[in-house]
Amino acid sequence: MKKLLLNCDLGESFGAYQLGNDKAIIPLVDAVNIACGFHAGDPHVMGKTVRLAKEHHVQIGAHPGFPDLQGFGRRKMQISPKNVYDLIIYQVGALKGFTEANHVHLQHVKPHGALYNQACQDNDLAIAIAQAVYDLDPSLTLVGLSGSALIKAGRAKGLTVENEVFADRTYQDDGSLTPRTLPNAVIDDTDKMLKQMETIIHNGTIRTISGIVRHIEADTVCVHGDSDEALQLIQAIRKLVVK
Amino acid sequence: MKKLLLNCDLGESFGAYQLGNDKAIIPLVDAVNIACGFHAGDPHVMGKTVRLAKEHHVQIGAHPGFPDLQGFGRRKMQISPKNVYDLIIYQVGALKGFTEANHVHLQHVKPHGALYNQACQDNDLAIAIAQAVYDLDPSLTLVGLSGSALIKAGRAKGLTVENEVFADRTYQDDGSLTPRTLPNAVIDDTDKMLKQMETIIHNGTIRTISGIVRHIEADTVCVHGDSDEALQLIQAIRKLVVK
Amino acid sequence: MKKLLLNCDLGESFGAYQLGNDKAIIPLVDAVNIACGFHAGDPHVMGKTVRLAKEHHVQIGAHPGFPDLQGFGRRKMQISPKNVYDLIIYQVGALKGFTEANHVHLQHVKPHGALYNQACQDNDLAIAIAQAVYDLDPSLTLVGLSGSALIKAGRAKGLTVENEVFADRTYQDDGSLTPRTLPNAVIDDTDKMLKQMETIIHNGTIRTISGIVRHIEADTVCVHGDSDEALQLIQAIRKLVVK
Amino acid sequence: MKKLLLNCDLGESFGAYQLGNDKAIIPLVDAVNIACGFHAGDPHVMGKTVRLAKEHHVQIGAHPGFPDLQGFGRRKMQISPKNVYDLIIYQVGALKGFTEANHVHLQHVKPHGALYNQACQDNDLAIAIAQAVYDLDPSLTLVGLSGSALIKAGRAKGLTVENEVFADRTYQDDGSLTPRTLPNAVIDDTDKMLKQMETIIHNGTIRTISGIVRHIEADTVCVHGDSDEALQLIQAIRKLVVK
Repeated sequence: MKKLLLNCDLGESFGAYQLGNDKAIIPLVDAVNIACGFHAGDPHVMGKTVRLAKEHHVQIGAHPGFPDLQGFGRRKMQISPKNVYDLIIYQVGALKGFTEANHVHLQHVKPHGALYNQACQDNDLAIAIAQAVYDLDPSLTLVGLSGSALIKAGRAKGLTVENEVFADRTYQDDGSLTPRTLPNAVIDDTDKMLKQMETIIHNGTIRTISGIVRHIEADTVCVHGDSDEALQLIQAIRKLVVK
Repeated sequence: MKKLLLNCDLGESFGAYQLGNDKAIIPLVDAVNIACGFHAGDPHVMGKTVRLAKEHHVQIGAHPGFPDLQGFGRRKMQISPKNVYDLIIYQVGALKGFTEANHVHLQHVKPHGALYNQACQDNDLAIAIAQAVYDLDPSLTLVGLSGSALIKAGRAKGLTVENEVFADRTYQDDGSLTPRTLPNAVIDDTDKMLKQMETIIHNGTIRTISGIVRHIEADTVCVHGDSDEALQLIQAIRKLVVK
Repeated sequence: MKKLLLNCDLGESFGAYQLGNDKAIIPLVDAVNIACGFHAGDPHVMGKTVRLAKEHHVQIGAHPGFPDLQGFGRRKMQISPKNVYDLIIYQVGALKGFTEANHVHLQHVKPHGALYNQACQDNDLAIAIAQAVYDLDPSLTLVGLSGSALIKAGRAKGLTVENEVFADRTYQDDGSLTPRTLPNAVIDDTDKMLKQMETIIHNGTIRTISGIVRHIEADTVCVHGDSDEALQLIQAIRKLVVK
Repeated sequence: MKKLLLNCDLGESFGAYQLGNDKAIIPLVDAVNIACGFHAGDPHVMGKTVRLAKEHHVQIGAHPGFPDLQGFGRRKMQISPKNVYDLIIYQVGALKGFTEANHVHLQHVKPHGALYNQACQDNDLAIAIAQAVYDLDPSLTLVGLSGSALIKAGRAKGLTVENEVFADRTYQDDGSLTPRTLPNAVIDDTDKMLKQMETIIHNGTIRTISGIVRHIEADTVCVHGDSDEALQLIQAIRKLVVK
């Protein structure tokens, strides 16, 4: 059975604003995606988070997003692929500054929020991101939604990719996530989440919202740590992974 | 006679806002200091400016400043040395992203505006900046006002330093620049500027505003390209340098 | 013949960044739309621009935009109508601060850039903007693309509206502007611009890109002052208006 | 015995970032100071907070600060009085937009953080702020540190002023607050806070850090609601006030 990594978004505080439960979740995951100051995070938070990740020996990734702190990078923006290329270089470069200053390795890049969603569907955006990651350092891994345009663009460029899966989201027949605007987009029930993870891990398949069973590649699963319940879910997923 | 470099600030445009005459000045200088998105510049401008610098084979430096786009980084801010350390890592890291993506070398770091002025006088700030530059890459050169706290901090850390001099600013008896709040801070007359440069280059001295002649170390001179007159001055300074 | 106003966007400088030719264009227009600090403009620029408008006795309007200085408010953003409502209150309120401090009247509101374009097509956005303008001050005039959703929402709310027309843009059969992504969106030829304005003013019609003649309401025309040619065009349009 | 108001800072959340305990504290105070989007707050938060204040029938004030979200407006910035004037008009105007849209009265203006501290000591800054408040609306009340430059500037301008006192801060012999950089700046002990408030309310005096008893004017006291302990302190202060 293939190894499945647990990854989570980290370092999302900003100035006086605290967000997330970084110290509680980091011992439970394999890889962290650190916000780079555009949708969340600031230089001070980034430095602190890289040091925290170093202490816990987790894989460090950059989590670049749209320049939209107020919207937490979750609002669609129509930014040209050329400009997105530059946003990626800037943000990943900034985080790389902190990993280099702390003598740790930057392992991967995973776009955040609306940028992630758009890049998983828009080939031109996906290609721009893959190119930026490749130009910055061709040994970086690109993380994207399993089977998405971002994964394809990364592979085409020759990058190592990681297919990301979700425990708490439903899938459509084409393998994309059900948009949050639709009623059944999110799985609330912990048992159902674990069932979905179990099927992904053991069978390499998901059951889509229409009931079809389809193959899914899974290298890493995105987990959250915003509540005690969420932390328990992570531990349950971890048990599945190492079973 | 020692080589004196000509350096200028570049890449200060932002979004739709054009500033500076980058294409006209770059053939006339040896080194450029590229804004890093906090006081000026944006990711797109940074990418373009690094490529322009690469074409012209000039030394590329980062020009980090305070997070104050509206004040162009020229307004004093009381930011703790610890936070300034992080601002430097972030901004220099971001620019390093662009130099790495373009396969060119990042050679130096020169703080901008109020951050430069404060770091040239405040030891704790100077030490924080030198430490950040060192941690990011100990082979980077630190540029600061000749003989200032920044130069001392860089040397103490083991960094290569470059003492910066000015053609258009007067000096006080302690070797510091006359503050712009004082009437005789700026030299307007081109002949006087060239005279000051000649004395620096040939005698290694300046005449302070009180008339004292004092020794000054000079590795690099800061030039501007905002007018035809300014561009002519650069050419006149260059002649002095290579004479 | 109905009076047609000439309006232009003003106060788009930001900090050290100068943009536009405000002093040259203001004597030539009837109304100005002043940027409110989100896509362009800053508090200092806004104060200066309101005083300039006061001196020239032109109608003063607020020109609120998306929170995207780097993109000059020209990039589509998916912001909920509820949040757009708040953006409008905030920005128009801020400008109203300056008009009140200068004892001049705030006459109108015209959304900027991508917000204008989206609000002219999206009913929910249009309604949110009309509601914000109404709530702030029901005597304010709402300016929008002639015949657009924004005009309709303003009318439905009971606001005075002004139908805006363009000399330099072509129209589609439904009365909307040809998107800039299409090749024939912009009219480059001065004669053609004047011809389009003449038809609008004298016949109340436009000829669409497919050649259909359709009725168009015209209360105000948007003019620009970025070049000498542009300033001459304004004068030519003014002659048509007063003929 | 003179009435003493209880005021607190409100509406300091930003985007996805929650800060403060607005709903718990608002029933306990007489007046609120609402952040205006520069050091904290955003348009959406401002609208929500104005509606919350309206429901609770508290006095609504604007709480303008430096343009420094990352530093929460607590870092000194050297901004010219002329530019501070504009910052005040902009931010207070923006909040006034929300009070007007909600048909409630804007009662006062209290500068925030470093701007408050600097304006309480720097006459030019104090005069600029008083002028801005006056120009915007001469019926607005200006709140500042008791006996400070800001209070004097407000009085000189003809504004109603409110002298603000603190329960949890010590005073120096000149009536200024002991700077937070000094060890005894903050009073941690609840009994001591209440003792200080009692003396202020009943005797109109404070005991300074050197032990001198001096007169202090007190119109309003600043309270915080960040913990259960803090909320209990407010109730204890309220009992003193109405005794």
